Amino acid sequence: MTLAALPPVPMTEIWRGPIAESLHLGHAVICGPGGEIVQAWGDPDVQVYPRSSCKMLQALPLVESGAADAAGLGPEHLALACASHNGAAIHTARVAKWVEGLGLREPDFRCGSHMPKDEEAAHALIRAYEAPCQLHNNCSGKHAGFLTLNQHLGAEPDYIEVDHPVQQACLRAFEEVTQHSSPGYGIDGCSAPNFLTTLHGMGRAMAFFANAREGADARQTAAARLRDAMIAHPDLVAGEGRACTELMRACNQPVALKTGAEAFFIAIIPGLGLGIALKVADGADRASECAIAALLVRLGVLDPEHPATRKFMNKTIRSWRGIEAGMIKPAAGLLA
Amino acid sequence: MTLAALPPVPMTEIWRGPIAESLHLGHAVICGPGGEIVQAWGDPDVQVYPRSSCKMLQALPLVESGAADAAGLGPEHLALACASHNGAAIHTARVAKWVEGLGLREPDFRCGSHMPKDEEAAHALIRAYEAPCQLHNNCSGKHAGFLTLNQHLGAEPDYIEVDHPVQQACLRAFEEVTQHSSPGYGIDGCSAPNFLTTLHGMGRAMAFFANAREGADARQTAAARLRDAMIAHPDLVAGEGRACTELMRACNQPVALKTGAEAFFIAIIPGLGLGIALKVADGADRASECAIAALLVRLGVLDPEHPATRKFMNKTIRSWRGIEAGMIKPAAGLLA
Repeated sequence: MTLAALPPVPMTEIWRGPIAESLHLGHAVICGPGGEIVQAWGDPDVQVYPRSSCKMLQALPLVESGAADAAGLGPEHLALACASHNGAAIHTARVAKWVEGLGLREPDFRCGSHMPKDEEAAHALIRAYEAPCQLHNNCSGKHAGFLTLNQHLGAEPDYIEVDHPVQQACLRAFEEVTQHSSPGYGIDGCSAPNFLTTLHGMGRAMAFFANAREGADARQTAAARLRDAMIAHPDLVAGEGRACTELMRACNQPVALKTGAEAFFIAIIPGLGLGIALKVADGADRASECAIAALLVRLGVLDPEHPATRKFMNKTIRSWRGIEAGMIKPAAGLLA
Repeated sequence: MTLAALPPVPMTEIWRGPIAESLHLGHAVICGPGGEIVQAWGDPDVQVYPRSSCKMLQALPLVESGAADAAGLGPEHLALACASHNGAAIHTARVAKWVEGLGLREPDFRCGSHMPKDEEAAHALIRAYEAPCQLHNNCSGKHAGFLTLNQHLGAEPDYIEVDHPVQQACLRAFEEVTQHSSPGYGIDGCSAPNFLTTLHGMGRAMAFFANAREGADARQTAAARLRDAMIAHPDLVAGEGRACTELMRACNQPVALKTGAEAFFIAIIPGLGLGIALKVADGADRASECAIAALLVRLGVLDPEHPATRKFMNKTIRSWRGIEAGMIKPAAGLLA
């Protein structure tokens, strides 16, 4: 375990009555066009798993290799490849059609199954006494991308093994764009490897995506296409009610947002040429959602009075009878 | 906001691959028969809401007033009064019958409604296109206790108001047993006031419950009856699969355990005359469940190899395909 050299700092406070009942600490970086740190909170060198926040990095080989074009993938597919979706019909139907087009079936996925977050989809399964399938997995779009790349490469079916050509291609892209040699990996919830980097490495990568220009070179073209696909389809990247979707829609300019498990969050802001990466040390989503909204407000790309901002940055905590009991608030240091 | 004078210390680590991906900090005290601190982690003087961990304190007036006996309540009712239950049939049926016996109905509750945690009960509601009712609220047993006391006192129906005789009786008992004047309150999830105290205050209160003897005086008798009711009915205090229930069953001697929202946890250990109170600073249940198990192992009342201990203290993290990805572990300082 590599301990952070600089301790995490207050990010999100959970108020109830006269006191902050709980407190979330974390690390964050904002990086500029050259990958330089514009501002940092906590330790930029802390080792992190970006988890699903790096799906756009994992999708680079899909586009760069020509596999995406060969399979006729459009912006909706690319947005789904970068998504942690709700498993709503708009997500699962598109992923199902995508892999059907490849001549593949649900058992070809290696992501495993879980109940969809989308309430309508979950209730439909419960009422039908049906178990969820791998299409419902929030990572099924990423895995459809892996399957597409794998078919293009003609490699073995277990595309989630760390030494498989698909994952090795992901690792190369990941290391090149983070500009950091990954010291190891963990197994993600979807069973694919998730590579270690530093928070600064992820901030650098997000700044690269923010500044990538289509036509500049193969990598920049791929990054710009993925970024713009995310921005064009906030509903596919997460789903109704989710922070990524609602905050992307609320921003006053094109911004790509992506959450990751254990309270990772990134932002790609092309208009400012900036990338953000943050990690709440304890892994709580309520805190990372509040913190990313606060940083977007700080940078002027999100109106603090927008209903979506208030929902995630200053969420009112209510009792089960609707009585106001407290509030989720960003720590003063994020906004000041 | 009163900041802790001593910072919270590492309590629970979330490992994935070669690193601890997330870390939970917190405060804990173990108190002896006189309320003295036997051991402390972090700041014993930190201000806390004990949330549902103080339900046995909120139930003291119910028993002491004679209301419980007048209504013919037995150990099952008292366990439910101290419960944050799953809303399974074993809970809701008992609470429904209890208030029916008082001549009251579901709308007399003031706790609000939420979906039951019990999967069978939740799925039955979804399949019937039915909304949950207030009986499903995890606090419905506590509220049945409030209703019983309120009927006994002949007071107004809005028993959750802070100046209502029911809540004022709770406050008096709370302050006397914590030996701390409460500086304020917050609104709990069930809309009742939850009074502030210090972690040491809650530890003192739990040590009082551990050492209370039936017959000594009215308060000790009430405390002993509530404690023994919890110990006799671990399935009513929480439910199948829950940490309170499974760890109480796993202990090698009678122990009462009770979780509270925002990662509070208490233990009452009559055989050792000890009380424990802990609060994970960020409010994560996975961390408080691991930490309380670690302290019970430390005190020798829980076998580290028991399946329930391993489930909460050393839980294996798996991918959706069942691949081992990491582990939840207590920080070294809790066990050493």
